[in-house]
Amino acid sequence: MRHDPLVDFSKSPHAAVRPVPLSAVTLTGGFWGRRESLNRDVGIPHGRRMLEDTGSFEAFDIAAGTSHAPLRGFVYRDSDVYKWLEAAGFAGVDAEDIIAKVARAQGEDGYVNTSFANENAHKRFSNLASDHEIYCAGHLMQAAVAHHRTTGETSLLDTATKFANYLYEQFGPDGTVGACGHPEAEMALIELYRVTGDDNYLTLAHRFIEARGRGVLSGREYVQDHLPFLDQHEAVGHAVRALYLYVGAADYYLESGDQRYLSTLNKLWDDVQKKTYITGGIGARHEGEAFGEAFELPNARAYAETCAAIASMMWNWRLFAISADPKYLDTIERAMYNGFLSGMSEDGKSYFYVNPLASNGNHVRKEWYDCACCPPNIYRTLASIRGMLFATDDKGIYCNFYDNCRIDDGNYSLEMITDYPASGSIRIVNHVDSHYELVLRIPSWVERATVRYNGMEQAAQPGRFFRVRKQWLHGDRVDLELEMKPARIFANPRITDSRDCVALTRGLLVYCIETADNSGIPIADLAIDPRAPIQEDSSAEAPRLQFEGLIGQPGESLYSAESPATASARPTVTAIPYFAWANREPGEMKVWLPVAEP
Amino acid sequence: MRHDPLVDFSKSPHAAVRPVPLSAVTLTGGFWGRRESLNRDVGIPHGRRMLEDTGSFEAFDIAAGTSHAPLRGFVYRDSDVYKWLEAAGFAGVDAEDIIAKVARAQGEDGYVNTSFANENAHKRFSNLASDHEIYCAGHLMQAAVAHHRTTGETSLLDTATKFANYLYEQFGPDGTVGACGHPEAEMALIELYRVTGDDNYLTLAHRFIEARGRGVLSGREYVQDHLPFLDQHEAVGHAVRALYLYVGAADYYLESGDQRYLSTLNKLWDDVQKKTYITGGIGARHEGEAFGEAFELPNARAYAETCAAIASMMWNWRLFAISADPKYLDTIERAMYNGFLSGMSEDGKSYFYVNPLASNGNHVRKEWYDCACCPPNIYRTLASIRGMLFATDDKGIYCNFYDNCRIDDGNYSLEMITDYPASGSIRIVNHVDSHYELVLRIPSWVERATVRYNGMEQAAQPGRFFRVRKQWLHGDRVDLELEMKPARIFANPRITDSRDCVALTRGLLVYCIETADNSGIPIADLAIDPRAPIQEDSSAEAPRLQFEGLIGQPGESLYSAESPATASARPTVTAIPYFAWANREPGEMKVWLPVAEP
Repeated sequence: MRHDPLVDFSKSPHAAVRPVPLSAVTLTGGFWGRRESLNRDVGIPHGRRMLEDTGSFEAFDIAAGTSHAPLRGFVYRDSDVYKWLEAAGFAGVDAEDIIAKVARAQGEDGYVNTSFANENAHKRFSNLASDHEIYCAGHLMQAAVAHHRTTGETSLLDTATKFANYLYEQFGPDGTVGACGHPEAEMALIELYRVTGDDNYLTLAHRFIEARGRGVLSGREYVQDHLPFLDQHEAVGHAVRALYLYVGAADYYLESGDQRYLSTLNKLWDDVQKKTYITGGIGARHEGEAFGEAFELPNARAYAETCAAIASMMWNWRLFAISADPKYLDTIERAMYNGFLSGMSEDGKSYFYVNPLASNGNHVRKEWYDCACCPPNIYRTLASIRGMLFATDDKGIYCNFYDNCRIDDGNYSLEMITDYPASGSIRIVNHVDSHYELVLRIPSWVERATVRYNGMEQAAQPGRFFRVRKQWLHGDRVDLELEMKPARIFANPRITDSRDCVALTRGLLVYCIETADNSGIPIADLAIDPRAPIQEDSSAEAPRLQFEGLIGQPGESLYSAESPATASARPTVTAIPYFAWANREPGEMKVWLPVAEP
Repeated sequence: MRHDPLVDFSKSPHAAVRPVPLSAVTLTGGFWGRRESLNRDVGIPHGRRMLEDTGSFEAFDIAAGTSHAPLRGFVYRDSDVYKWLEAAGFAGVDAEDIIAKVARAQGEDGYVNTSFANENAHKRFSNLASDHEIYCAGHLMQAAVAHHRTTGETSLLDTATKFANYLYEQFGPDGTVGACGHPEAEMALIELYRVTGDDNYLTLAHRFIEARGRGVLSGREYVQDHLPFLDQHEAVGHAVRALYLYVGAADYYLESGDQRYLSTLNKLWDDVQKKTYITGGIGARHEGEAFGEAFELPNARAYAETCAAIASMMWNWRLFAISADPKYLDTIERAMYNGFLSGMSEDGKSYFYVNPLASNGNHVRKEWYDCACCPPNIYRTLASIRGMLFATDDKGIYCNFYDNCRIDDGNYSLEMITDYPASGSIRIVNHVDSHYELVLRIPSWVERATVRYNGMEQAAQPGRFFRVRKQWLHGDRVDLELEMKPARIFANPRITDSRDCVALTRGLLVYCIETADNSGIPIADLAIDPRAPIQEDSSAEAPRLQFEGLIGQPGESLYSAESPATASARPTVTAIPYFAWANREPGEMKVWLPVAEP
């Protein structure tokens, strides 16, 4: 059994649970299994072609002096390559040729960055706030750790540690105080520390976190430099940068147990809960790709970058590691099945950078982006999502998320049989004779959950873990039934853009109305009687929902002394899961439906 | 009588009306008269100090070589100085020392721009999309025209024509195809043509308009380079830039009669009507200071730059000149009393760049901005607003807007006595013996309007002109009564942020609720029963409104399976005119009130 967890908090002194090896978990063709395959067979190869076509691989040849082509792309292009390499590592896709390119581009001193090679070498570390050098280094380390854990090879790890050592010379205790305008290296260095045992990396990660708010990064909220980290109690600025910083800080807490870090993380988490879309999307503002104020969650103008949903999953995974609190898993699940998954098309070859909750038909996927951060971030997430399905502690094993899968980690051997989220029926079959606690997460969204085992049926409490501690025998089964039915969720009236609106959900899935299923219906003018019955069909992965809609008559004028006319038509409307939108011809879409009286 | 109209379309072949001289109109202490005085006595001197303190005047000394201080401010700092000079010209404030500085900074070739002098001279016209050189030149021309018209002096006009001649050499028929990323010079050149009679300036203005969409300005919507001007049928990109371009195009139509221009302008106007706040604010998006989609009008995140409201007034003034259609005056009035006037504090010394329609208390005025376009734009507008109160044609005189004033232009001598907008009672007294048509604008917002003269009372139709054609005798009076009462205006439901909301208005004034009048009331949670009676008090310039509000209980969670709780309290709420907000301690504010059942 290889020791290859997604994030290795297995020896972290302040972790409440331990991760399981990626190699211990096999997805067997369920919801995420299908996506893991698509990602490996289509997504990652597509990404390779795009990185090839955009000159991102070639940049390393230019840096190594083996190509004299003009450099293309943004200053942070290396990070796209590294995220792709990390995905390849998790997915078992061969990428040795690219790893070799990276190694050849590395200087004797350990520095490697294609934007600051050759004639640009004199600009190294001259603009920490904007140049993304340490950010790129962090992604190199993450790729190296993934490659090393899943293959046992040290080729990329050697490159990464050389660079990390160079960074330690520059910014460690004997160097200058600095950090990167885009956090990322903090979490990466801590993972490198976990792999290598070299505590210089932990020290450096801590220095990077503590460097903020000290005047070395422009002082702007955009780069989380407005305050020292421990004084940052509100989530502001660029959402992905902020969340990556919080991830690193959570990793630092896992190793250090510094209670001030935990206190800050808890305050930030509470604040982010006032700034999160129902889809798990984060980062309301286009301007500055930033968090808005509390309750500032516009729908059509949502930013909700795919990378921010991923960062939220990463952060909540570590917060769960710290606390074993299922609320963090609820948060991951919301993003994972909705605002993260919407980021990739069903064919795996086109993507969203921005994930709005309403569209007039102009928002369409692209096969790649000039700023290509999101696609490879999706690849690495899908390639490793199985690493979050389980966790363990001294007493037993946690079933965090439900999908068709097996786990065999040497201690536990379980089979999970389900078509979740199409239904909430989950059968778990034990294949070892052992005394342990089987811990089942009961999602907070469920109204009724029952667990059957040993011929008994017990109600389980939503938002809690249900624990079955017993002597397990080979073949023992537990049947979990999570009631899965259509529901109407009301928005807090302070979310002005969704005031007096409902969103349709079914279990963990948020639904939306799209033109492709509703031709001829002006979706912008669609409302719903909150008492209207909602039917579900039995389509593939997740049922579609149907209800009788109400079509308003908004008229032409923006402002009128007359109250708007009531509904003029009552068409049958079909809703699909939000994650599945924008896979057919472009059209209108919306999640939130105004409540109207028929 | 000096010939000093605000915009001189008096000889334009395609104008339906003629402007009156600024010197013919005297504001006599009414609504705008008080602001004209405040602007002259406080605002313009304050602006002078700020321009001094920020090094904007000194930049001309640096360019002239008489100072060696470091250059401060943005690349377009000259335009702030020129707008201030234009205001000084209209207001009769002495600025000869500054005019002399500008002249000394001018090169032999006529070029003057403090950002491209001395060691930066080689960069001239190297980045038309971003460097604002032609934009600054346009503001110089407008300042020069104002100074010349109001003083008869030619000092600044000589500087401006020399620069204009240089621009004609560079970009005229014998030069290259170019234009500025920030339109402005188009309208300015046409005014210079009107003053000098030199039709090179008209030719050059036309070339600048026609240069768009030809690939010389990056092709971006941001700078209106996405399409040739005549193909631009939707208002997109940076709102002020777009509107300034439309102003220049309207000026070009006034001179040329090119019907394609009129057709394009009409399409753009119709589109802008779907993108205008109830306050007359324009430009919904912070990102790119841009127009949003139709109906995209967020309240707290409104951009609604003060300069855009001003640009809208400038554009509609020319569209009125073209058509004599009162709808353009309605549009001006809406902006003038609401989203423009909100841009300046009651003491004349602090300003808004951004004019949101809701605030959590964080939006506060500043005494100046690093990007200082708005304050001097306010100065020049307030200093010349009297120029839009009247217009004439062959048959008579139009009363466009109502304020305490006199006009004596040699043909007409009228006195207007009113406390508009506190009341809608307007008395107009004629002081000449003459046969002419008195044309009264009946605003579209009024429900009932009556006109009394010759002992008769007649109803007048809203949104039309009411014409009194007769032999006038000295002392003849007309009394116009515009019913002025509180009203509730509903937003089109497609404006999702204001869906199911009402705004309170009284006549032309839009009202808002501010913490300063409503201590202890959580304004974010305030709703209104649309049938609740609205009282008005008799405070100074405009009554305050009072009604019984309904306070919702939004709860903490963003999303809930339960519909939000109904009102928990019914406080008496006071509303004030939107233009008057943010003049006391900072607090919450909102214009749109959700409709609720008590």
